[in-house]
Amino acid sequence: MKDDAISELKEKLRGISLIEHAIMLLEWDQETYMPPGGAESRAAALGEIVGIKHRRSQDPALGDCIERAEEVAQSSGDPDLLALVREVRYDYDQSVRIPASLATEIAETSSKALTAWRAAREKDEFSLFEPLLSKQVELQGDYADALQNDGFERYDILLNLYERGLTASEFEKICQQVVPGLRTIIERATENPSDVPSFMKGPWDKDKQLAFAREVATELGYDFERGTLDLTTHPFCTSPSAPHDVRITTRVSTDDFISNLYGVIHETGHALYEQGLDPEWEHTPLCDSISLGIHESQSRFWENEIARGEAFWSHFLPKMCQHFPGKLDGVSSREMAAAVNPVRPSLIRVEADEVTYGLHIALRFELEKGLFDGSISVADLPGLWREKMQEYLGIQPETDRDGVLQDIHWSFGLFGYFPTYLLGSLYSAHFYEAISRDINIDQEVSAGRFDTILEWLRTRVHAPGRRRAPLDLLEDATGSGLDPSVMISALDRKVEMVHGV
Amino acid sequence: MKDDAISELKEKLRGISLIEHAIMLLEWDQETYMPPGGAESRAAALGEIVGIKHRRSQDPALGDCIERAEEVAQSSGDPDLLALVREVRYDYDQSVRIPASLATEIAETSSKALTAWRAAREKDEFSLFEPLLSKQVELQGDYADALQNDGFERYDILLNLYERGLTASEFEKICQQVVPGLRTIIERATENPSDVPSFMKGPWDKDKQLAFAREVATELGYDFERGTLDLTTHPFCTSPSAPHDVRITTRVSTDDFISNLYGVIHETGHALYEQGLDPEWEHTPLCDSISLGIHESQSRFWENEIARGEAFWSHFLPKMCQHFPGKLDGVSSREMAAAVNPVRPSLIRVEADEVTYGLHIALRFELEKGLFDGSISVADLPGLWREKMQEYLGIQPETDRDGVLQDIHWSFGLFGYFPTYLLGSLYSAHFYEAISRDINIDQEVSAGRFDTILEWLRTRVHAPGRRRAPLDLLEDATGSGLDPSVMISALDRKVEMVHGV
Repeated sequence: MKDDAISELKEKLRGISLIEHAIMLLEWDQETYMPPGGAESRAAALGEIVGIKHRRSQDPALGDCIERAEEVAQSSGDPDLLALVREVRYDYDQSVRIPASLATEIAETSSKALTAWRAAREKDEFSLFEPLLSKQVELQGDYADALQNDGFERYDILLNLYERGLTASEFEKICQQVVPGLRTIIERATENPSDVPSFMKGPWDKDKQLAFAREVATELGYDFERGTLDLTTHPFCTSPSAPHDVRITTRVSTDDFISNLYGVIHETGHALYEQGLDPEWEHTPLCDSISLGIHESQSRFWENEIARGEAFWSHFLPKMCQHFPGKLDGVSSREMAAAVNPVRPSLIRVEADEVTYGLHIALRFELEKGLFDGSISVADLPGLWREKMQEYLGIQPETDRDGVLQDIHWSFGLFGYFPTYLLGSLYSAHFYEAISRDINIDQEVSAGRFDTILEWLRTRVHAPGRRRAPLDLLEDATGSGLDPSVMISALDRKVEMVHGV
Repeated sequence: MKDDAISELKEKLRGISLIEHAIMLLEWDQETYMPPGGAESRAAALGEIVGIKHRRSQDPALGDCIERAEEVAQSSGDPDLLALVREVRYDYDQSVRIPASLATEIAETSSKALTAWRAAREKDEFSLFEPLLSKQVELQGDYADALQNDGFERYDILLNLYERGLTASEFEKICQQVVPGLRTIIERATENPSDVPSFMKGPWDKDKQLAFAREVATELGYDFERGTLDLTTHPFCTSPSAPHDVRITTRVSTDDFISNLYGVIHETGHALYEQGLDPEWEHTPLCDSISLGIHESQSRFWENEIARGEAFWSHFLPKMCQHFPGKLDGVSSREMAAAVNPVRPSLIRVEADEVTYGLHIALRFELEKGLFDGSISVADLPGLWREKMQEYLGIQPETDRDGVLQDIHWSFGLFGYFPTYLLGSLYSAHFYEAISRDINIDQEVSAGRFDTILEWLRTRVHAPGRRRAPLDLLEDATGSGLDPSVMISALDRKVEMVHGV
């Protein structure tokens, strides 16, 4: 009879997961095919369905069921059941702590803040965004207080929303290693600046770019029987139903092929994670990604570790030439690898190269931390942004549009999210190093054999789902804890190889 | 205070409508972009969300609210409010009469019947479908009994699901006029069979077909700011959020342009109805289509009355020539009109021409009526199908695949649905005649002025929504009741003009 608690729990989780399926599809469509006139109704439909999901997630009957399931799991000793009830309990306890009135206020403020951010960016006028940004900081503080449990700082609690177990002091230590390490590499690389080689010049036919990118994604292991590739303004990956329905999007411009190709590979990395989740535990946290940092490690692994290497181009350059006859005659895979690995300080995070990227994150982390410990006020942000850009990257935005107003995240109240991008790079370097011990990666990639690498990730990173916390997963998979020097050394070697410095 | 009942009612209806929005999007995506691997999860997600909608639609709190709203509406005397509570009451009373167990059994049987129908069609073996078709007839009988209210026959109750107020005896009278009328026209037309003119031969470039069809849809008034056009196996129109988000789909083959062009125009007609619904009453029955027959009248109006006329081609032939340079040199709009108005008895309903189409419907009506009054058994269907095809159209299918197994409808338990296709043609002819009294249609169409015609339909047919029952709407709009001779005479004139007989 007691086993019934597990079945009942799974049934309840399945219902919630199926409602999430609808939410994710409504959001996916909003970015891909929805006609503009449908925007207002779509927001309303999302509000309705999200409300239904919240009520189910906080239902006291779910709480009772979890309690009974915990007893069954404990007496069974089954590690999967124990992980299941642990994660479900975690989600439930988080969910019930948020008052409905706060959730509504955040949703409404986010909507207004998004509009204000768009206007402020359009007019390059930070003051238009400032009051709503202040409100979002205040509301996220309230949100952290509502979740408060073990005496953590507010910003720690927010960080934990995106990366379980991460604290500001730990991330600060990471930055203290990463920032000087990256700056040294950048200084060396920019002493010898390299021009963009002429073979990189456009125009690049859009349909051909998409056909080539699709071919690459397929070879890397993205299963189009369980996936799609559509066009959006901002690329993303979403899973209405992991691992069976996982979707990526991309953008394409005739000016260069980097944005499309590396965008598709990046999203493919995310999608491979979702397609590699454990179908046996579909609709439960065991078939869900553990954190944004681990998710990002998978996109960066394929984008940076694999697809920016010479071995990748020794396999794919002939294939790319077939799509673009005559355009790449005489280009070597080494030249191509150098061309796709620029190191150039620039203003916009999403356009930053692999080396300078981490500094954009360190800057944002310091500002967010200051906002929540009270040492920085919202009004100080534009000036501090310019100062820190100068300090870290040696350049300053002329406008706030290219500075503090460039990211959408804060308008949604996403504070503590940016650090996961850097964590993704750090984890990714660790995975690469660990795989190198088992597999001759260059040899496999040159031969177009990506399945051995994917299988390594499937077993150790994808299939566990939320069974293991991020750092435990890292330890299990690689045998070591997080060490920023792994990424720094790898970037150092790459820059030396590619730029000969 | 009493007005609150109306606000509360609208709020409840809005919630149900927003859940329907999600359902319609899940269904749309299933046919357009969903990867094959997502099918099983999608079915589950639809089951979950449809269940939520059913519970809301039958909620006793909704019943209470309707009662209070009825009092407010009656004391206000406001015709919109009276229509609102009348229609909401109708839906609620229908909804609460269906036991959940019956709804579940029908859903499960439909799923099995669909699979059986596909297998039976594939193998051309009616016996594989027969037991599940029998089950569907039985379940639809139970469904009719559950809805039973005023001593109607079962089949009358089913007809009423799709066309409010329609009875079998009325439709029988319609058929008694339509069948001999159409047969006379067909006999005359087929005495002088015309060959397919050589300019109709393919190949027709798919992208150019789609570009031309999109141009036509736009000129007819389809608003792409509130609409989409995507590719599916079977074309359809759906509205996640009428009138703000209305979507059509089409198919395209290089063999001929008719299927794509007239398919798009047909769905555009449906979409114009949905885009013309009253936004002031969004999420309520006053912003919903009144019946399938009226819906079909709008698709057939644009497809047949407008787009198969010579005036249409005098406007669009030069535009089509721009899309297909050289392919239509020297073709006159008259020749094109003749080419798109064949009269040829054929086996498959969805490929039938405007004249023979009605006979395919009469045949299905007679079989359905017999199934529900007990005069026909499911086992008799294949033989009766062949007999009636011979009697009405002078041809017989060699296989059941081209006979009784051709339509998907019965596998879903849709009995009483087919008659609305013929009603659509009848209403459409009435609307054309009435508009002709106010507007010189040929003159407007030749000049590419479709807005005057659309405006006529918007005011009299689209905007009313469910305020008026189908026949009342017809009477209001055209000043007359349903008279099949209007369509017969119009087809007679068209065949004479086009085929010179």
